[in-house]
Amino acid sequence: MPHFDINDSHRINASQLDVAPRLLLGPGPSNAHPRTLQAMAMRQVGHLDPQFLALMDEIQELLRYAWQTDNRFTIPVSGTGSAAMEASLANLIEPGDKILVGVNGYFGHRMIDMAERYGAETVHISRPWGEVFTEKEIREALETHRPAILGLVHAETSTGANQPLEGIGALCREYDCLLLVDTVTSLGGVPLFIDAWQIDAAYSGSQKCLNCPPGIAPLTFGERAVEKISNRKNKVANWYLDMTMLMKYWGGGTRSYHHTAPINMNYGLRESLRLIAEEGLAERWERHAKTAQLFWDGLKDLGLGCHVVPEHRLPSLTTVRIPAGVDGKKVQQHLLQKYNIEIAGGLGELGGQVWRVGLMGYNSRPENVTLLLSALEKTLKK
Amino acid sequence: MPHFDINDSHRINASQLDVAPRLLLGPGPSNAHPRTLQAMAMRQVGHLDPQFLALMDEIQELLRYAWQTDNRFTIPVSGTGSAAMEASLANLIEPGDKILVGVNGYFGHRMIDMAERYGAETVHISRPWGEVFTEKEIREALETHRPAILGLVHAETSTGANQPLEGIGALCREYDCLLLVDTVTSLGGVPLFIDAWQIDAAYSGSQKCLNCPPGIAPLTFGERAVEKISNRKNKVANWYLDMTMLMKYWGGGTRSYHHTAPINMNYGLRESLRLIAEEGLAERWERHAKTAQLFWDGLKDLGLGCHVVPEHRLPSLTTVRIPAGVDGKKVQQHLLQKYNIEIAGGLGELGGQVWRVGLMGYNSRPENVTLLLSALEKTLKK
Repeated sequence: MPHFDINDSHRINASQLDVAPRLLLGPGPSNAHPRTLQAMAMRQVGHLDPQFLALMDEIQELLRYAWQTDNRFTIPVSGTGSAAMEASLANLIEPGDKILVGVNGYFGHRMIDMAERYGAETVHISRPWGEVFTEKEIREALETHRPAILGLVHAETSTGANQPLEGIGALCREYDCLLLVDTVTSLGGVPLFIDAWQIDAAYSGSQKCLNCPPGIAPLTFGERAVEKISNRKNKVANWYLDMTMLMKYWGGGTRSYHHTAPINMNYGLRESLRLIAEEGLAERWERHAKTAQLFWDGLKDLGLGCHVVPEHRLPSLTTVRIPAGVDGKKVQQHLLQKYNIEIAGGLGELGGQVWRVGLMGYNSRPENVTLLLSALEKTLKK
Repeated sequence: MPHFDINDSHRINASQLDVAPRLLLGPGPSNAHPRTLQAMAMRQVGHLDPQFLALMDEIQELLRYAWQTDNRFTIPVSGTGSAAMEASLANLIEPGDKILVGVNGYFGHRMIDMAERYGAETVHISRPWGEVFTEKEIREALETHRPAILGLVHAETSTGANQPLEGIGALCREYDCLLLVDTVTSLGGVPLFIDAWQIDAAYSGSQKCLNCPPGIAPLTFGERAVEKISNRKNKVANWYLDMTMLMKYWGGGTRSYHHTAPINMNYGLRESLRLIAEEGLAERWERHAKTAQLFWDGLKDLGLGCHVVPEHRLPSLTTVRIPAGVDGKKVQQHLLQKYNIEIAGGLGELGGQVWRVGLMGYNSRPENVTLLLSALEKTLKK
């Protein structure tokens, strides 16, 4: 049959899949919930099968609960959190639009990088990594720049800071500006009210407090965001993430094919969201707060400090100051090799200065805190 | 804790995940191989864990085998096949580049739509859906248009046509043009030689002949493609799919973080590729050819015809002419409801005229042909 000889040089004999039982206490991925992993192994149905369309409706409803929104356009994007971030920017920005970004960590920078690729005029306000913006600062910047969009990071995965958002949505309406919020490390673990806080657009990831493997990413657009997208003069400069086309698949009605949905990732996300609905948001948020407090108290007992002040600390992600004279990377390696625990180092400005510890969703449990503190203590004493 | 009341209106009580045991004989997704589904449920490790980095190397090697290429830049894209198509175009096209696309089905049109979003000047040659281009036609078009890129679809999922590619790569070198090929429905099921055929860039999907669920998509760039990307004057107008950044994660060396890789989708893809290496490409291609021939012979016995002439028919996907007076959609619905078999109707120009039947990878088995033919016969006799 083939007109050419088959080259066997890359035909390696790879062994059966197996990996160490890591406890993933870094900034994400967190460990997937066992029920989520089970769901992902369910046999497939087609992406236009009536059974899959029914599952899509359920996923959308459960996402609305987790996000506390009635937004009709609430969907999972077929990629990781960064794809959902880009989907937000690619659809909301028309060339020449001004976007104001709050930069107090790595992901604010990423927002600017993406926004520029879609032809936005970008301006920013900044704060040292680990701090947050006050309402006053934001008001002044809106007054000065009069942007079409304000982008803020609710939970900065690079710093562990929790940006207060109450009042910002109202402010944005006053200045006729859309509020876009990164909720990658808050959704499902940190109090968050899309509708009550008047957030116009938000995105998240699956592999943080939702405990679903990476590869699918929630996105929600409110009425004002949908209106801006519907009035676009140009095609969205990104086909895969073009929500004007995807709305026809997820938005009911025609269910037109756009791209093949990642069926099994949707199975997994649905199970993760079911777990949130079963537990209840208030209970879940409180559990995260309690587990984090336990960890922070334990750090103090070890003589370790946190990078972020208590009132703006995320329960889902803590940045721990690396003590002087300690090689942070070596500690991480030792924790991984000896205890199968993954924590991460700092990114960007905080590189070498902090460890990042995530206690997210299913992983936010007292026994994980006990184990990590004990392993950390032994490692630092070595 | 929360300053707002929690809204329970979307807190639905979704049942435990379960779906009917569908036999997916449409244009994709095909049924995932049971070993692939098992692999996807494996516990996670982090995307920078040494164990994951080792798995990445294996995936790249196994992809090189499946594609018959030594291309160093051979990776899985973190999205579905459409994302890999867009990654190819977004990275290869600089604004103003001319791209010549062969349009003989739905996916040629999609290539043009995407290319335009990245500022390409698009020209095309066309053929009725189901036909293929001759080398002579392609040479004439290259002579006339002198494009920077020629885009062809090897296996048109919308028509079932198999575009001959031998000689086209050499032709493109003669005209100093890159050859980009859509191999979504051929990789792992239809003879395909990236290096021997001098294909500069190709992409595929996971949910066709690889039998991995959708959500991860192979991509390979040869030296000439990598050179064009490396010499870009502008940033790639798509952050998530920017291969100049992703090369640092997949390309060895620094392994810099770009976005969180979809860990479990990579587990699944690795298992699917292991199955190909175990079986052997020649054996696999022959199995696809034999199963398809069995199906085509059976169709003839039922008095049904194929849309594509035998010499250009894909073994992985067959377009069956719907007999006059038969409601194609009703037949599909009956097959799904009564026999749990999914086949699809025609797309675009072939809407209402054909059924699309996929016999892909794990699904390419004689018993599936027997079942489908028998179910089809009973359904048509009703």
